[in-house]
Amino acid sequence: MARPTPLSGFPELLPEQRVVEREVIDTLARTFELHGFANIETRAVEPLDQLLRKGETSKEVYVLRRLQEEAAGADAGLGLHFDLTVPFARYVLENAGRLEFPFRRYQVQRVWRGERPQEGRFREFTQADIDIVGRDTLPFQHDVEVARVMLDALSRLDFLPAFTLQVNNRKLIQGFYAGLGIADVEGAIRIIDKLDKLPPEQVCTRLVEEAGTSAAQADQCLALASIRAGDLSFVERVRELGVEHELLEEGLTELAALVEGCLPLVTDRARILADLRIARGLDYYTGTVFETTLSGLESLGSICSGGRYDSLASDGRTSYPGVGISLGVSRVLVPLLQRGAVTADRSVPSAVLVAVVDEDSRPASERVATALRANDVPCEVVAGAPKFGKQIRYAERRGIPYVWFPGAEGHEVKDIRTGDQEAADPATWRPPAADLRPQVSADRHEASGDETSSDGPTGPAPTTTKEQQQ
Amino acid sequence: MARPTPLSGFPELLPEQRVVEREVIDTLARTFELHGFANIETRAVEPLDQLLRKGETSKEVYVLRRLQEEAAGADAGLGLHFDLTVPFARYVLENAGRLEFPFRRYQVQRVWRGERPQEGRFREFTQADIDIVGRDTLPFQHDVEVARVMLDALSRLDFLPAFTLQVNNRKLIQGFYAGLGIADVEGAIRIIDKLDKLPPEQVCTRLVEEAGTSAAQADQCLALASIRAGDLSFVERVRELGVEHELLEEGLTELAALVEGCLPLVTDRARILADLRIARGLDYYTGTVFETTLSGLESLGSICSGGRYDSLASDGRTSYPGVGISLGVSRVLVPLLQRGAVTADRSVPSAVLVAVVDEDSRPASERVATALRANDVPCEVVAGAPKFGKQIRYAERRGIPYVWFPGAEGHEVKDIRTGDQEAADPATWRPPAADLRPQVSADRHEASGDETSSDGPTGPAPTTTKEQQQ
Repeated sequence: MARPTPLSGFPELLPEQRVVEREVIDTLARTFELHGFANIETRAVEPLDQLLRKGETSKEVYVLRRLQEEAAGADAGLGLHFDLTVPFARYVLENAGRLEFPFRRYQVQRVWRGERPQEGRFREFTQADIDIVGRDTLPFQHDVEVARVMLDALSRLDFLPAFTLQVNNRKLIQGFYAGLGIADVEGAIRIIDKLDKLPPEQVCTRLVEEAGTSAAQADQCLALASIRAGDLSFVERVRELGVEHELLEEGLTELAALVEGCLPLVTDRARILADLRIARGLDYYTGTVFETTLSGLESLGSICSGGRYDSLASDGRTSYPGVGISLGVSRVLVPLLQRGAVTADRSVPSAVLVAVVDEDSRPASERVATALRANDVPCEVVAGAPKFGKQIRYAERRGIPYVWFPGAEGHEVKDIRTGDQEAADPATWRPPAADLRPQVSADRHEASGDETSSDGPTGPAPTTTKEQQQ
Repeated sequence: MARPTPLSGFPELLPEQRVVEREVIDTLARTFELHGFANIETRAVEPLDQLLRKGETSKEVYVLRRLQEEAAGADAGLGLHFDLTVPFARYVLENAGRLEFPFRRYQVQRVWRGERPQEGRFREFTQADIDIVGRDTLPFQHDVEVARVMLDALSRLDFLPAFTLQVNNRKLIQGFYAGLGIADVEGAIRIIDKLDKLPPEQVCTRLVEEAGTSAAQADQCLALASIRAGDLSFVERVRELGVEHELLEEGLTELAALVEGCLPLVTDRARILADLRIARGLDYYTGTVFETTLSGLESLGSICSGGRYDSLASDGRTSYPGVGISLGVSRVLVPLLQRGAVTADRSVPSAVLVAVVDEDSRPASERVATALRANDVPCEVVAGAPKFGKQIRYAERRGIPYVWFPGAEGHEVKDIRTGDQEAADPATWRPPAADLRPQVSADRHEASGDETSSDGPTGPAPTTTKEQQQ
């Protein structure tokens, strides 16, 4: 066949880019497990009626049809999942009798959204979700826990630019609006959400005209939305607005506990921000909400979002409250890889290329390789027996740091970067730890640079929106 | 919603079963990397025309349609991949200019086949493929290499029953038949393939009647097919049949080199068998063919198959020969999990549950957990502050081996299996290595037992056929 071209929206990685992705996923998995989260995977498909329960996502679903079926009417009734929350809720219900609650799980899988390719949205991408789900009840403490876990995980991804976990609480907003006497709380929240795009005066006008607030109420809504703090000072600033409501008090207490619980994890690179402007996620969540932005990469939108659901799932008799966060792995990683902002130093796992003197001595080279592998040193043996110069170029092109020369008199290993060569025993020799595996490194300068156009295997650069992430 | 039921053909695992699957995949990945294979993943979808190039697989393809598209005529022209070979061939062509050849890659991903659920065939399952692909040429040595790598990998899966890698070579068969003067070589091979199901006399009759061989030629075909050897003795036995042909000689030499190269890896559990009866894979491959069966689980069919393609991919000007093997991870694992033949000793990663004395001292418990995690000890902190007895039962139900009691005077850690309790410092304490992570263990007796019917999350027991595996 002719040389194929990439499919828009379906990014693929070269081997050296995949090294970076695996390192990210391994780091996330290790962190989640240190915090006691069990891994699961769910099937890629769900019944369509489950996927379409939220009307607004219907446009995004890929429906499956078996090829030999005649027409759309014969659809299998299955679609590809568009997030990991819907399948997790179904998994919890299906296996409730076999799970221990509260159930902490993490899940790293691809999801699919059949949107028309536009603005770099991916049609296939990887998400990493953590959730804690309880049976009937779930202590608020777990809201703090998931925030801490994700802060810990993101902090360990040291190639990332600085990031800010922005938190808010639906009860706080709802209670504040109710305490103000606003009748159409949902409508007012939807208008406040436009503060990203509209000047405050216009938002104010629309609150009055569309949500039926008074001018004074609208001013108070804007005042609340302007509060941001990286510490507990936001509590006093909310109180100074003079609004009182039981739900507001509950939300304030929760948000304060959340910020307080996260403060010990704050560093130069990992920030927490109580941001009372966040309104968007409130449609879905019933308490805590999370968003996360990267410094210098704010255009990516929130890379990591989530919150508390009073009822993640319910079978009618039992309700399963949950709290979770979802990290858009592809959303963060693909743009950074495209910019060359994070790279691996070789495209193969081999730390050593074992040279072959001539075809007759191949078994000797194979024995060296077997000894190195027994010692956990990844290596490969040259195919054929070309001249040593060609064997060294083979290693150079792949970034393999060492070439091993077996000899009847003894063995020598050469660091082809420095040219240093020394005698070595295949049963005991190991390279320095940094050479054992491909090393991932970041170029911070590139991270916040302009997006480069790319015909590469990673596809077009994404400028995704929040919906795609959670 | 009501409690959902499993989808037939889409197996899912409970957290403790997923522990086993991850251990298997990690072991495979580690082994492949020790042998210098780089990991890649490809997108889940391919253009339909690529998927349908082999007519016989067309029935198995899941076609995608975006929900808002009206009818089947508006199909996106995409289908889910049904193996990892078609996408890999496309990836090689697409990225040929950015890859170094010979290119060793491994790939562990799900594939989908839209077949009607029957005989336990999965519609979604995981495969682990290794391939080496060259540009224009690929030395035969790599056929030996992939066999050795897969033997090494399967040997490390110590919960597996004994297995036998069965090998043959298309050139040997084709050359033998040609040397015999059989005109319809392909037809004769297809009939010989029925030796699994039909008695030799019937196969003989059909060779004569349908493939037009003489009775003597048919006898020679059967004689060749009866040769099996775990060493190089098959070479002499083939020669004794007195057939001569250049291609036969080439095939014999290759098969002998393959067996010889694998002999050093043979153990009680890992066997190699030159099996000249294998005919099935010869349709697809041009030289070496591999199949693998598990002792006592022969009903699963070949769990690991592959071979040599003279042209894995071609863009018209350049051809890319390849050799590879594909392991059916779900095919092997799901039946063993269903039988309880392999299990993990806990359902959570936590090695330690950190107790909470009362809500006021929660920060002290959190500090213990942070110290343990800094030391790479997975742990979780009790939510709330129930009585210690309830906290211990929480750990017991999840299989968490240790409970940590923080105290103002000092810390103690209790092994809840033995009841032993001792003073400990959270900054330095580590459990024995065997307690650090969930341990996977095998019950060999169960492995070869009858398949139990199961309504469990792993779905119906599979009795898959060879096609599904590669």
